[in-house]
This record gives sequence, structure tokens and C-alpha cells, in this order.
Amino acid sequence: MKACGLIVEYNPYHNGHHYHLQQAKKITGAECMIAVMSGNFLQRGEPALVDKFTRAKMAIEQGIDLVVELPYFYAVQHSELFANGAIKILHHLATDFLCFGSEHGEIADFNHLYHFIQQHHKAYDVSLNRALKEGNSYPKAHDIAFHSIAGNDINIDFTQPNNILGYQYIKNIYDLGTGITPLTIKRRNSDYHDTEIHGSIASATSIRHLLMEHQEQQQLANVVPQSTKEGIEQYKERFQSWHEWQAYFPLLQYKVLTMKKEEWKQIQGVKEGIENRIVETAKRADSFLSWMNSLKTKRYTWTSLQRIFTHILTNTYTKEVDAELRKEKPDAIRILGMNTTGKTYLNSIKKNSEVKWYTSNKKPYPYQTMDDRIDHAYFSILPPSYQLQLKKQAYQSPILKFN
Amino acid sequence: MKACGLIVEYNPYHNGHHYHLQQAKKITGAECMIAVMSGNFLQRGEPALVDKFTRAKMAIEQGIDLVVELPYFYAVQHSELFANGAIKILHHLATDFLCFGSEHGEIADFNHLYHFIQQHHKAYDVSLNRALKEGNSYPKAHDIAFHSIAGNDINIDFTQPNNILGYQYIKNIYDLGTGITPLTIKRRNSDYHDTEIHGSIASATSIRHLLMEHQEQQQLANVVPQSTKEGIEQYKERFQSWHEWQAYFPLLQYKVLTMKKEEWKQIQGVKEGIENRIVETAKRADSFLSWMNSLKTKRYTWTSLQRIFTHILTNTYTKEVDAELRKEKPDAIRILGMNTTGKTYLNSIKKNSEVKWYTSNKKPYPYQTMDDRIDHAYFSILPPSYQLQLKKQAYQSPILKFN
Repeated sequence: MKACGLIVEYNPYHNGHHYHLQQAKKITGAECMIAVMSGNFLQRGEPALVDKFTRAKMAIEQGIDLVVELPYFYAVQHSELFANGAIKILHHLATDFLCFGSEHGEIADFNHLYHFIQQHHKAYDVSLNRALKEGNSYPKAHDIAFHSIAGNDINIDFTQPNNILGYQYIKNIYDLGTGITPLTIKRRNSDYHDTEIHGSIASATSIRHLLMEHQEQQQLANVVPQSTKEGIEQYKERFQSWHEWQAYFPLLQYKVLTMKKEEWKQIQGVKEGIENRIVETAKRADSFLSWMNSLKTKRYTWTSLQRIFTHILTNTYTKEVDAELRKEKPDAIRILGMNTTGKTYLNSIKKNSEVKWYTSNKKPYPYQTMDDRIDHAYFSILPPSYQLQLKKQAYQSPILKFN
Repeated sequence: MKACGLIVEYNPYHNGHHYHLQQAKKITGAECMIAVMSGNFLQRGEPALVDKFTRAKMAIEQGIDLVVELPYFYAVQHSELFANGAIKILHHLATDFLCFGSEHGEIADFNHLYHFIQQHHKAYDVSLNRALKEGNSYPKAHDIAFHSIAGNDINIDFTQPNNILGYQYIKNIYDLGTGITPLTIKRRNSDYHDTEIHGSIASATSIRHLLMEHQEQQQLANVVPQSTKEGIEQYKERFQSWHEWQAYFPLLQYKVLTMKKEEWKQIQGVKEGIENRIVETAKRADSFLSWMNSLKTKRYTWTSLQRIFTHILTNTYTKEVDAELRKEKPDAIRILGMNTTGKTYLNSIKKNSEVKWYTSNKKPYPYQTMDDRIDHAYFSILPPSYQLQLKKQAYQSPILKFN
């Protein structure tokens, strides 16, 4: 039974994701489609619109066979660590293929680039470090380093976020010696940050805009499958709100203004005195947006600041993240959802697997204390009775669909 | 210029307080009336209905000449430490008298009791420690110890909270060698916890009930001075809410469910594994009241639990409280309000004073970082613009009335 991995956030699952899933099935011929999905907080340092189990359910309903969680310590990270975690998990699930979406769309160019950088990695590292020291953000520094060694030989545009991620996937597939075959599909919506909607494919960003601004339902129906539409609308109906930064603003401001110096030192991602700026701006901030705008600098991009805010909100310490990242293989794999194909696949690889997987919190898994804390933070904006209902999901059976 | 000290919380200032103030003036003949007042959090581990500057203003308008803050590390404590802090401050303000309200009302009996316990302090301590070990709460253990050594010779009822406090005031006045003359006035409303209102004197508890339950304004006007009525009504009008535990429930629940083991160890008042009970009950709590009810035990009284919650909310560590309590005299005295009499009095004692006082946060005082954090926590339930307005008070001049 061949398996193909997808690395996803599904925030929410939309027609573009569905196109990608169909194409990946077609070109790989895989029988089991595995999605490694960020949990309740995402790579760009944001709460997911709806929780991870609800998102897993929507994915299963659209044809994903197995959804596993990309743990927080891998997920809320820059592209290198995000990719490293996702590939490790796919590797330990014995995945045959990885099929990623990219703006570029040509796998040969990614492979070529990987080997080229391998040959020039010293020059690359020097250039990367110099760019970082000059105060460039992480993605910008990579872009500078790529071009400094390859000049115009590189025809992949590294200002595009999915191209960068793609390169990191390839790098980890080879560096970790996984044997996974990488493939890429050209993304049909060209601009990740596009907020306008045209046709049936729209970016997740534009779909979230649509939702937050209460625009007409028909537009939503054009760009997401019916099950996504129902899933996210039901969530709002049942639990009164979706999850977006502004809802966490009072908690975050309270936390920031009551933290001690010694606590700041421990928080993941806090360095170079950024905590002083965060505290000073917190005193005058009247919304999450105004706070972010008063904080942003050349070095601290929107994304890197959002990640720091996520770690503050979830009370995540550098030492606990580092302890997990140092491990050669993940301590555990948390299954969020599967259908009977997914279950059959898991059984087929069980004998040879070096990593245990967990389908419920009834049997605690190694980093569950951290996950519990993160989930408490995620649900903290909801009334207590809704929190209870939603937290119960983690103790239920993950089989969501019989196919 | 003779000064008389009162130890108060004024939550809010009512006719009973006013009667006490008038009587104290009359029996001492003092020209300057000094109130040592708890700040934004009170001895019983509660947020004050309205903030400390607003409460100081209401007191000045009714005839108090000088309001100084009883710092948090003294105020949110059991009666021994509360009294110790208050007497230290009055001593360093060169106060001649202390006039306290008590259910008992006879100063000679308090003085007699102090000397009796002095003579039998070893037996008293043995009995106190035994009662504590047996799982009794702090006040109950004191009551047992009093009666074990004095039998029926003691005619002061120590189940009455103001009698216990009174004894602690006397003890500190003598133990610290202050030279303050203690006096007591019999409280006119007999029951501290009374929630029914009769006549013009009502307990602060019953007045808060009246306010929270939106009862008719006339009843309020019967039991508080006009300036209190206006002050607390204006606060609600301007800032949308008063401060009560239920408003802090979401913040507190979020904090409790995201704290780490290593942080719990540091929080003032947390011991004997109570943190595990707090975390477990937090998961199912749907209001502050239901949470408290599920937590209460024989050893952990309502008050002691509320104090722990206050320290959690304000992120107060044992080590910072201990560092302040170890000091022989307070590091600084924070003036919250005064009239011209208060100012004249302060000038008259300045030359001989061993403790510096501060009338504004413009010039930082030694434990201001702690106070700022506590005030941020106190105001955290309000919208950002209101927080800003209220926090500005600390940077303004404290002279509130020219008399």
C-alpha cells in the first residue's frame, strides 16, 4: 500500500487544497493520502480559525485518509524547522511520496538547487549569516543567500513562500536519508496573500477575510467544499466565535503586562530585548492590530512577532521546545483523524515502526502536557461550557469515516 | 500637630466608616487623620470595587487628611502580617494614636489580653501550632490557642474578625516599640458579614451586594455619604464595570490552565499540593463561585483561597513578598491622597522621618515594579482606553482637596 504525504494547515480546507489532493493522488497513484497538519496554532503564529479536530474531520470528509498533527514545537516555527518536523513525521509513517504545492511547480529545479547548494554550502552559510547579522528577517536572509551563490542560475523565485518551504522539504528529505520521493504541483492561485477572490480557487487568507467580514454565503460556497462551509459555519453557530488574534488580545495584554523579567527570558523566540518593546507597546495598544503595527521592524516581521505572541499566550519555554527539537525522531505521533483506509495503512506499518502513535488522550503520550497547555490557551476565549465540549474531542475515537 | 491613624479598606467608604472617623477625631482630639488603606486588592483576597485612587478621593472628601497605601505584600495577608504592615507604616508616619473599630469595644481588655499572652506566649505558641497541624484554618487556630491558655478569663469574642485584627494591632504596637496609643470604638453594625441593611449603618459587604444586584438607589443613599454614591456610580458610568472576582474569571482560568509546575512553586501562598486541586477544578469550573465552592476545604477557607487566586492573577512570587516582609521598615510609603492638613502634617515630620514617601509614580519608588504589575492585573478586565485613563492617576498630583 503506497502512501503519499501532504504538509498542510487547512485553515480552512478549500478548493485549492482539494485540487492539490486530487492531483497528488493522480500523479503518485498512492492508495493512502496522509496529511501532516499544524494543530491549533499555525506556522505563521496564528490561532487556526477552528480547532484541529474539526479541521481534521473536514479533511477526512474530502478524501484524506489519515490526518496526523504536526506538533506545536515543529509547527510554530520558521520554514526550516517546520519542514524538518513534517518530513520526520512522514518518514516515521513510512510515506513513499511527498507532494507539495509550489508557485514554481518544477520538481527538477528544486532537486537541482538542492545539489547546487550542497556543493556550495559553506559560501551559502557565510552569506546567510551575514544577511542575518545585517538585520534581515529570516526569509529575506535566505533569499539573499540563494542569490549570492547562484546568481541568475536559480530560476525559482524565493520571494514566494511555498517555493521556500518546498526547498526545505527537499533538503530534509535528502539530509535525513528518508527515501521519500518528492513531487510538486504548481499552485493554481498565484498569490498566497491575495485577498480578492476570483473563480473557484482562493487563498486561505482571502477565505478568512470573507468569513471575518461576514460577506455573502454564496461567495464562500464558490471556493470551499460544502463540508468545509458547513463545518466552519456550524462551529460559529455552536461556539459563538472563530479563533482570531483579536479575540485573544485581552488575555495576551494581561499576560504581557504581568510577566516578570525572569519569565521573559524563558519564552521561546524572545531575544535581543524585544520583550521591552512588547511591554512598552502593550501599555498603549488598543487592539491586536495596532499593537502589531507599533511593534513591527525590519528584523521583526509580522510573522516572527506573531510567533512570539503565540509562545507568550501558550506559555512555551525555549528549553521545552529545544528538548523536543534535539530528538532525532519524534517522541510520539498524534493521530487527529482517519478513515478505514488510514487505519489499514497504520496497521500495515505498525510492525516496523520506531515511533508510537496515539489516537486518543485517554492514554497519555510523551508531550501531552505541553499539548494540553496549548489547547487550553487556544480555547480560553470561549465560554467555559464550550471549552469543555471542545476539549472532549481529544478523548474520543479518531475514526471519523468508514469508506 | 497630633495625628491619629485608622487602618481601612473603604470598599466603599460608608456611614459606619464615617461614624468611626468622627468618633476617632472626638476621642483623640487629633488634628490630622491618617488612613492606611489597602490598595487595589484587599485583605480577604478580593479586588476592590473601585481602584485605590478613587477610594482615596472619596475618603478625603469625607474628612480624612492623608491616605497612604498599605502595600500589597502587607495587605493581601492574614491578620498578623496585615496588622504588622499597617502599624509599621503608621509608626513611620509618627502617628500618635491608632483608633480601630472592634466588636468588643473596650481597649482595656485588649491591653490586658496582650500582657496575659506575653506571660504565657510559649503555651500559646504550642497550642497555636498544634491547632494548625490539626488542619484548622489560621483564624480558627488562633481562637483555639486563645481559649486554651486563657479559658474563660478572656471576655473578647475571637470569632469576630475585628476583635482578632484589633489584638494584632495592639500586639504590633507594643512589640515594635512604636509609642502609638491604641484606642477602640465599638462597631455599630454588629455583623461584618451581614447582608441585610437596616437603618443608616450597613456593612461594606451588604453595600456591595446592593450594588451588584442593582437594587434601588435610595437604599444606597441611606447608608453611604453622597460623595461615595457619586464616586462609585460615576466609576461604573465611565468605565462600564466595577471590579469583582467574576469579571476576572476568564483571565484567572486561562492563567491557571497555562501555568507550569515550576511557576506554581513560586506563587505566594501555594503549598501542600493545592495547585493540583486548583488546576483540576479549573477544568470544570464555569464561574468563579462554582470554582471556589469546588475548592473549599476545612484548611483552605474561602479567604485563604481568594488570597491565592489574587497572587496567581497578579503573578506574585513568595520570594518577592518575603524580601519585603523581611525588611525592618517599609522601603517607601506611597501617598494616595491628601488635603492641605495632610500635606502640612507630612512637612512637619519630614525632618525626622526614616522612610521616604512618594506622591507620584513620576519618581519611581522601590517596589513600584511590583505595584505596576498588580495594577495592570487589576485593570485588565477593562477596555484598553479605560485602562489607560485609570493608570494615569498614579502619575498625577495627590492633593485632592484644599481645606
